[in-house]
Amino acid sequence: MTDATRPGRRPGTSTTRDAIADAAGRQFAELGYDRTTIRGIAREAGVDPALVVHFFGSKQRLFADVVELPFDAAEVLPRLLEGDRADIGRRFATFVVGVLESGGREAMVGLVRAAASEPAAAEAVRELVTRRVIGTIVDAIGSDDAPLRASLVGAQVVGLVMARHVVGVEPLASTDPQSLIEAIAPTFQRLLTEPLGS
Amino acid sequence: MTDATRPGRRPGTSTTRDAIADAAGRQFAELGYDRTTIRGIAREAGVDPALVVHFFGSKQRLFADVVELPFDAAEVLPRLLEGDRADIGRRFATFVVGVLESGGREAMVGLVRAAASEPAAAEAVRELVTRRVIGTIVDAIGSDDAPLRASLVGAQVVGLVMARHVVGVEPLASTDPQSLIEAIAPTFQRLLTEPLGS
Repeated sequence: MTDATRPGRRPGTSTTRDAIADAAGRQFAELGYDRTTIRGIAREAGVDPALVVHFFGSKQRLFADVVELPFDAAEVLPRLLEGDRADIGRRFATFVVGVLESGGREAMVGLVRAAASEPAAAEAVRELVTRRVIGTIVDAIGSDDAPLRASLVGAQVVGLVMARHVVGVEPLASTDPQSLIEAIAPTFQRLLTEPLGS
Repeated sequence: MTDATRPGRRPGTSTTRDAIADAAGRQFAELGYDRTTIRGIAREAGVDPALVVHFFGSKQRLFADVVELPFDAAEVLPRLLEGDRADIGRRFATFVVGVLESGGREAMVGLVRAAASEPAAAEAVRELVTRRVIGTIVDAIGSDDAPLRASLVGAQVVGLVMARHVVGVEPLASTDPQSLIEAIAPTFQRLLTEPLGS
């Protein structure tokens, strides 16, 4: 949303708010949730710390406001889910690995690290994942157990990020993207389309 | 190892070392890797911080020395892997969920949190998982792609711990243990016994 489309807000104020949000986004990504401070964000944005609190309240609230997935879930997920159902696992795996092999890796690692660090950050990540990802998948699948399926898919992705990009467990960390897609596609396929229990 | 079986070490010294290790284990579990300090561990153990450094070197080294899985992998995993192969996924899922529903949950959550917090802690966890878990699974399965299978199984478990117990994504967080076992058993079955790619 540009300044011009934000109703009822003075341009100057909005710019300051955006500068704070930009600084916060960078610092949360680079330093992690724990080491990011209101004071440090204020310094980078060139404002008084009191102004950060004025606009966003707490560090937790600020994190929840600026944290974003490195893709537009509302645009991407329906497209992945609406194609041929027999192929959905591979499409999903290709998309996930693609995000993690591109510029989206840093953001995903930052999200997972933040979620692991403090209940406050975990709550923000949970809200984000529940609202953007699980809700969208549930709407597309539409079955009774869609919410559980969606959260199991989420657990898969988080585990992959942790093992491959955070902990660096070998040989998973150095497996080439195509072999990785082959290895994880059947899990997504089952979780999204096949009977869950026995 | 008891004091009597540790060669070449005076009992008094060994007891001090054990007291430091005990205090470190408690503080890493309760406070997490980031918030645990050499000073805090020394205070709880009733020794000078210099003595902690003398015995263990750095905080990273101390963490690597005291961090443990909440089960004896060398005893448990071969038993799980050596039974009927057609049932291995369910046995493995039952074991993992059992650990996480019992006293082992705190230790597993502590490990995952620590691994997410700092490269130093991640390295210690990686060593632990690689040495104790992946090596044991690889020995039992014995195929060429056993290391990748084992690390994918590890990613599954980490993702489950994160999504269910750290982030608390619903409905996964409140799913009853038996339904959870049913839902994840086929994934373990495939990763351990079926063709990995297509």
